Amino acid sequence: MSATLITRIGELMTVDDEDRVLRDAAVVIDGDRIAWIGAAAEAPAADDRVDADGRALLPGWVDSHTHLVFDGDRTAEFEARMAGQSYVAGGIAVTRDATRAASDERLSALVAARVRAARAQGTTWIETKTGYGLDVASEARSARIAAAGADEATFLGAHLVPAGVDPDDYVREVCGPMLDAVRPFVSWADVFCERGAFTAEQSREVLTAAAAAGLGLRVHGNQLGHGDGIRLAVELGAASVDHCNFVSDADLDALAAGSTVATVLPACDLSTRAPLAPARRLLDAGVEVAIASNCNPGTSYTSSMPFCVATAVLQMGLSVHEAVRAATRAGAIALGRDGSKGDGDGAIGSIAVGHRADLHLLDAPSATHLAYRPGMPLTAAVWRGGRLVVTTESASS
Amino acid sequence: MSATLITRIGELMTVDDEDRVLRDAAVVIDGDRIAWIGAAAEAPAADDRVDADGRALLPGWVDSHTHLVFDGDRTAEFEARMAGQSYVAGGIAVTRDATRAASDERLSALVAARVRAARAQGTTWIETKTGYGLDVASEARSARIAAAGADEATFLGAHLVPAGVDPDDYVREVCGPMLDAVRPFVSWADVFCERGAFTAEQSREVLTAAAAAGLGLRVHGNQLGHGDGIRLAVELGAASVDHCNFVSDADLDALAAGSTVATVLPACDLSTRAPLAPARRLLDAGVEVAIASNCNPGTSYTSSMPFCVATAVLQMGLSVHEAVRAATRAGAIALGRDGSKGDGDGAIGSIAVGHRADLHLLDAPSATHLAYRPGMPLTAAVWRGGRLVVTTESASS
Repeated sequence: MSATLITRIGELMTVDDEDRVLRDAAVVIDGDRIAWIGAAAEAPAADDRVDADGRALLPGWVDSHTHLVFDGDRTAEFEARMAGQSYVAGGIAVTRDATRAASDERLSALVAARVRAARAQGTTWIETKTGYGLDVASEARSARIAAAGADEATFLGAHLVPAGVDPDDYVREVCGPMLDAVRPFVSWADVFCERGAFTAEQSREVLTAAAAAGLGLRVHGNQLGHGDGIRLAVELGAASVDHCNFVSDADLDALAAGSTVATVLPACDLSTRAPLAPARRLLDAGVEVAIASNCNPGTSYTSSMPFCVATAVLQMGLSVHEAVRAATRAGAIALGRDGSKGDGDGAIGSIAVGHRADLHLLDAPSATHLAYRPGMPLTAAVWRGGRLVVTTESASS
Repeated sequence: MSATLITRIGELMTVDDEDRVLRDAAVVIDGDRIAWIGAAAEAPAADDRVDADGRALLPGWVDSHTHLVFDGDRTAEFEARMAGQSYVAGGIAVTRDATRAASDERLSALVAARVRAARAQGTTWIETKTGYGLDVASEARSARIAAAGADEATFLGAHLVPAGVDPDDYVREVCGPMLDAVRPFVSWADVFCERGAFTAEQSREVLTAAAAAGLGLRVHGNQLGHGDGIRLAVELGAASVDHCNFVSDADLDALAAGSTVATVLPACDLSTRAPLAPARRLLDAGVEVAIASNCNPGTSYTSSMPFCVATAVLQMGLSVHEAVRAATRAGAIALGRDGSKGDGDGAIGSIAVGHRADLHLLDAPSATHLAYRPGMPLTAAVWRGGRLVVTTESASS
């Protein structure tokens, strides 16, 4: 692969350890890595040259929480919720039935279309979960399709106890044959630790079995009310605890003292008319906060990271810089891919020499426009692993 | 112009007097008008045929409140506001200086680009205002450029009293030479009736002069606090009073008893972190509520009507049907173009035989997806006056 120079960048946010904001900057991509960063005037020559014409360049979004392996329609449930009914987890069964009924080909095509839609808005790394299979064979199939279609896959057999199944029997199945069946495809295990889903004890059992099988841990917690999810996640060293709408002082202290990322899901909060997660309070306590889309058909049917970032700034009190970091580097930290555990080689979520060339050129002079112009399409070009995968008419080269 | 049949429409919302939601429907466009509506199975033949493939067809958005004639950058002001400073009207002066300094060609090109961006998201009719000129020559030029670039133009000389100018002198100028100079280009006059801008008495003076000159009336009112704007607008028979963030019981009674539309501006509310306008309460009182973008560089730098509609549903408590009506037909009512004052010929904002063929095909099976999938690009095709002006790859014909 030849080298590409992106030059005349109006604003370059590195979001790396140095966390620089450069004006009139340039970046050189060599193969799938970033080879050079600096002032446009000092840039080396390259085979190809892209004139950013003063526009802003960011790391591509790292969307660390999605549920893309599904079929079926839940528009009616959304309409009912907007008419005032409250969300209950039961809607997942509708998706489970439709997902089980879909062919492999159809599910794979749906995942591919959803990943394409995410990339079109600047997402360059996307995690996705199982959790609409809920039996051994269906979870294994979902895990295989997730791993093939997204950048990494998470086992969420413990999404819901299927109706008519004894919860303890189901937990044993999740921890035994189901975990064995998905193991070749996934790097993470997740559990929905919430009233109506899995208790703290059941969640601990699932997470402990998953850790013993060599998987990294994630938790859905504290979405619908106060509970044990956050503290359990921190105690077990989970990489991330996601939702965090209800955060007690004890939860906050635990997060601040631990290394678990708190991942907030602004589009889900709006789509369920839930209280927005207290991202400002988490940041002020020194917690690493990530933003993800939670794209799923029940509670957050969007993969638009720009929408999530705009919401975080306009409604959660984050600065643009904080929101961009949360949607890039903090997502990478939540996936253990920020490079902090190695020499940074191939790290994602930040722009630094040796990191993966996952880049997002905005059709705007600064990242501030992501919040300043909500709803406007601001993605001009996207490079993923050094390859230009999205470009719009206005991104002339 | 030849006739076009749009068929296999999954959901057709007419938003006309009959307010029908049709399944498996079809529409025939003949010239710039809608010639036929009915069941797909009964559709007549036409020269061209577009297969909607089960997708939803709505009237194009009617954006009844924008400020597109401007130059200059106010990113820093937005950033300051997000950092906790409150909005004061003074920022308008920054835009005034840059707008005055721009050439006619540049201003016209900026307006054209902004109108194109709005159309790309389904807006088929757009009003825009002067108000960044603030002297006779600059307002006249802005009015000329507004009228040429948008579908109709509003005189907003009374946007702000320029610093160093006596308010009463300025009002006299607005009501005299400025009104005369803009008169050939505009059909409406508007006034910013708000503490820090124009008092009720000054606003009345401006509106009375404008009405005497044959202009329709609009008011910016009750944005920053309680005040006289709403009641003045109703008393003078203004077509619309816009913002309405602070609505007293007396205001509500006045609106309910009068014929003035209450236009809410959700993107502005979010962008200024203001309390969302009480659209639900207004609708429940029987007030006609319109949704507009208020696209402007200070307080709402977006023309995304899908974003506004999603916000109205997710955060203001409107049903999708109510929000769609507010962003189409109610906008037309706010501009006196819904056809209610004539035989409906050429009316906008609804889908009925004889109305203008302003149509918005969604890349989704129902309008609900506008709120269910916030931030996702859902415009598949747009017809304006019968002409296909926007189409995306996925809108195959």
